[in-house]
Amino acid sequence: MNIVCLDLEGVLVPEIWIAFSKETGIEKLKLTTRDESDYDKLMKYRINILKEHNLKLQDIQNTISKINVLDGAKEFLDELRSLTQVVILSDTFSEFAAPLMKQLGYPTILCNDLIVDETGMIVDYRLRAQDGKRKAIEAFKALNFKTFAAGDSYNDLTMIKKADGGCLFRAPQSILDVEKNLKLTTTYEQFLAEIKTFLNNN
Amino acid sequence: MNIVCLDLEGVLVPEIWIAFSKETGIEKLKLTTRDESDYDKLMKYRINILKEHNLKLQDIQNTISKINVLDGAKEFLDELRSLTQVVILSDTFSEFAAPLMKQLGYPTILCNDLIVDETGMIVDYRLRAQDGKRKAIEAFKALNFKTFAAGDSYNDLTMIKKADGGCLFRAPQSILDVEKNLKLTTTYEQFLAEIKTFLNNN
Repeated sequence: MNIVCLDLEGVLVPEIWIAFSKETGIEKLKLTTRDESDYDKLMKYRINILKEHNLKLQDIQNTISKINVLDGAKEFLDELRSLTQVVILSDTFSEFAAPLMKQLGYPTILCNDLIVDETGMIVDYRLRAQDGKRKAIEAFKALNFKTFAAGDSYNDLTMIKKADGGCLFRAPQSILDVEKNLKLTTTYEQFLAEIKTFLNNN
Repeated sequence: MNIVCLDLEGVLVPEIWIAFSKETGIEKLKLTTRDESDYDKLMKYRINILKEHNLKLQDIQNTISKINVLDGAKEFLDELRSLTQVVILSDTFSEFAAPLMKQLGYPTILCNDLIVDETGMIVDYRLRAQDGKRKAIEAFKALNFKTFAAGDSYNDLTMIKKADGGCLFRAPQSILDVEKNLKLTTTYEQFLAEIKTFLNNN
């Protein structure tokens, strides 16, 4: 049996923090895992900016409620789920993901949680595990699945390399420059073809 | 983060082998994991009966294509998937599950594969792992999920006992007689209430 593990932001939905940056006009919130490889550093930086501007979880959720999934993402995912098992592995938070999962027809997502104080301010976050995407791939492999992993960011690289097969999808030049051995796909058509090749060989 | 692991047959869809037994009139195919605790013995017994009657995978798939999911199962699962992550852990086969997963809106299912010869006869099966349901629970726990498991059969007992929470759903008397400490639910309303209690405490 095969299982396909996909990153969420940049692959199926827009980058949530970039959308929130646009909404608030706070330029500094544009930084994502595509730019910064140290996730803890990135999240602490974001939480500090939210505090400075007195922005709460609800403010981010209001932005997310207006986000649409990427053009073609639902159709791509629907077809993929008719072919094999799919799990989304994301470093986002369940508090952010819910409305997007609804739009995508509730695929299974393994992600993280925020810690929010009584006033609704985000004070910290709870990673399920360090390098949790890679660990999820290892867990599925230990359960005797053949795994395919794909994403666009630094935090996807260890899972892609650990999986039995994988590729990048719309990754930025900074990652392409370093990861010359990983195949890049940029349309859902190419992406699905790449996954189908893997499924047919396993 | 929480993850709810559900058995498939008897919980969300009818027992496939019972349906096939009715369709073919072969009484001996009525035996399921609710009756026989040794899964390998049960499958070898089934494969032998299929061979005797020259019944192929396609014959079983024709029966499955006419099966409807249990009354209320889709609504139950839809609500549950809007609340938390759900994975179906089943000892059925991907060759059987596909049309039923479509009816249920493609939840993630971890199950097994059949080995089919060139004439379409089922000659063997491939368990992903011995006691695979329990191992999946252990894997999710190792990934720092709080796990809830539920089912109706012998092959669900180890996963239910290993999970952080769990219950039986419409289990037969033979299991209730032995497993007096496991809570039994018999309607989707009770079932959902039991899971919600778990989610609220985790």
